[in-house]
Amino acid sequence: MNRRISFLCSRLEQRGLDGLLLVSSANISYITGFPSRDAYLLISSGGKGVYFTDSRYSEEAQESLKNPIGLRECNGTVFSGIGTSLREMGIARLGFEERHLSFAEFSRLKELSGKAVELIPVHGMVEASREVKDKDEVEKIKKAVKVTGLAYRHIKKFVVPGASEMEITGEFEHFVRLQGCNGPAFDTIVASGPNSSRPHHLSGQRKLRRGEGVLMDLGVDYLGYKSDLTRVVFLGKINPLVREIYDIVRKAHDLAIERIHPGAEMSEIDRVAREYIASKGYASCFTHNLGHGVGLEIHEEPHFSRNEASAVKPGMVFTVEPGIYLPGKFGVRIEDLILVTRKGCEVLSGAIN
Amino acid sequence: MNRRISFLCSRLEQRGLDGLLLVSSANISYITGFPSRDAYLLISSGGKGVYFTDSRYSEEAQESLKNPIGLRECNGTVFSGIGTSLREMGIARLGFEERHLSFAEFSRLKELSGKAVELIPVHGMVEASREVKDKDEVEKIKKAVKVTGLAYRHIKKFVVPGASEMEITGEFEHFVRLQGCNGPAFDTIVASGPNSSRPHHLSGQRKLRRGEGVLMDLGVDYLGYKSDLTRVVFLGKINPLVREIYDIVRKAHDLAIERIHPGAEMSEIDRVAREYIASKGYASCFTHNLGHGVGLEIHEEPHFSRNEASAVKPGMVFTVEPGIYLPGKFGVRIEDLILVTRKGCEVLSGAIN
Repeated sequence: MNRRISFLCSRLEQRGLDGLLLVSSANISYITGFPSRDAYLLISSGGKGVYFTDSRYSEEAQESLKNPIGLRECNGTVFSGIGTSLREMGIARLGFEERHLSFAEFSRLKELSGKAVELIPVHGMVEASREVKDKDEVEKIKKAVKVTGLAYRHIKKFVVPGASEMEITGEFEHFVRLQGCNGPAFDTIVASGPNSSRPHHLSGQRKLRRGEGVLMDLGVDYLGYKSDLTRVVFLGKINPLVREIYDIVRKAHDLAIERIHPGAEMSEIDRVAREYIASKGYASCFTHNLGHGVGLEIHEEPHFSRNEASAVKPGMVFTVEPGIYLPGKFGVRIEDLILVTRKGCEVLSGAIN
Repeated sequence: MNRRISFLCSRLEQRGLDGLLLVSSANISYITGFPSRDAYLLISSGGKGVYFTDSRYSEEAQESLKNPIGLRECNGTVFSGIGTSLREMGIARLGFEERHLSFAEFSRLKELSGKAVELIPVHGMVEASREVKDKDEVEKIKKAVKVTGLAYRHIKKFVVPGASEMEITGEFEHFVRLQGCNGPAFDTIVASGPNSSRPHHLSGQRKLRRGEGVLMDLGVDYLGYKSDLTRVVFLGKINPLVREIYDIVRKAHDLAIERIHPGAEMSEIDRVAREYIASKGYASCFTHNLGHGVGLEIHEEPHFSRNEASAVKPGMVFTVEPGIYLPGKFGVRIEDLILVTRKGCEVLSGAIN
């Protein structure tokens, strides 16, 4: 049995569960070790597993699944297949991922698992392991960051007045595929001029103009693992207000990163950036959390907000990305990806500029 | 009040509901008329609406929302905001989208909506309208198909021995962005040689070889509306078995399309293709439904299977895509996008070859 499954089994035992039904693709990929889509995974507390998918994916699943996980192909009848497996495995107390199972799926599971099975909503059983990355995962993330840096350098040539946001997005995504990545990690953000005041702007047809800033939020997927980077580039002379805001965000970013070391509270790191921005009078313009964990998902554990008491641990990978947004005018965000080390941290994307 | 909202209100009345909580981004986009992300939408049977999102999206939402839908910005407290709106609007019987609300969200909604609100799982309240497209929607789909055709012609130059699946994927996605599309409609499939036997293969690093087929399943997103097209290209001389299979799939495809007219049953169209493939001895190798509806989502209503009794209606848009897959060897699928007209149908992608 691999380490990931045995960890999960010990958690199941602690919770008094006989089994867990996994629905999240990222969690299933983490446990099986291969990229999973449109599948369910049942793991018993004894460490046996059944992977449920349909004929579109069964050939690749059959090749990739390893003992102790077996394949059960279900075409249009997945919950009846799960019901059968629950009986075969003698599972009476079943946990299910409450944030990933829809209400309709829950109803179907309840109907087809039989009266003998008690269904218990759970969250975080696999996420708790995923928040600390192992060596192999860190290598994949580093590779994703490396490609992001190369791609950023490549697209800067296209960041000129007259180019559209979408053209730059297209160049980025094309480049990362040629570098052996699966593609972008999320909807690439190229936000020019006033569009940059929207933290989650989608690249559009707007053309870049001289004298304005272009905010680019970029990430790639390498073997399932993600990167995340934000830079702002200026076309020509910077307006003094933009420069002032940029310097505040930069300083907030640096102060937060200085504070990262094993044992620090997530909230404390958020606070140092937030208080600096507030001290400059822009408290209400920094509207989101300071960052988020990154791995198999672009947003994952650790949660990173002003209220998060949990402590930083070596092996965590998360973003630090303070921002100031002036609606209708412009926005600045600077984002780097951080790996927590035994003594402090490494800014994985620190050399990208 | 617009037609889409008034239709929805009449459905709510029929079901005896005071309101509906929408969770599906496609359904919310359809009702509001602008691309929605990370939002919830509450519509009362009287036609009032509240759109819930957070600060990342509130600026664009504020600009795009039209009467009778108003914005309520909720940061980290969306269900308490929904609870407040339910009380303000006097909603006692609330429908919710059971396939889109997670079990955890349901629990939170139950807790925060108060004892006075009865929660009723529903499905298809908006989808039922979406399965028949209006003129404006058809125009957008036609534009998406047009760009797909141009992009297909463009990438054929790159389909040569030695090119990788991923390179071709990159060329496709880059091209469609330059044509003003939002990007691909789904994970682009370029499946070379034996990879083509997996209906949902993900493009990878495999390089194309002389003498083999390359299956390409391509789609783009134009203002939220999708296209979907599959073609197989052969590099050099075609092996006689591949040619035989190709001709069978082609004939099944043509027979199914001939059968499409308003009033025909979806199952009957599926059956004519399936029976033809079976008559040639490949019944077990056609493992999926004949097609699926396409619009704001790449898979939507109408449902299109051998068991679907519902009838074809003018304005429906769906794929016809029979396939034969020989695991470990190769697969062939031919897919076109069909618009049902008053007298028969139009093969929107028919000129693409």
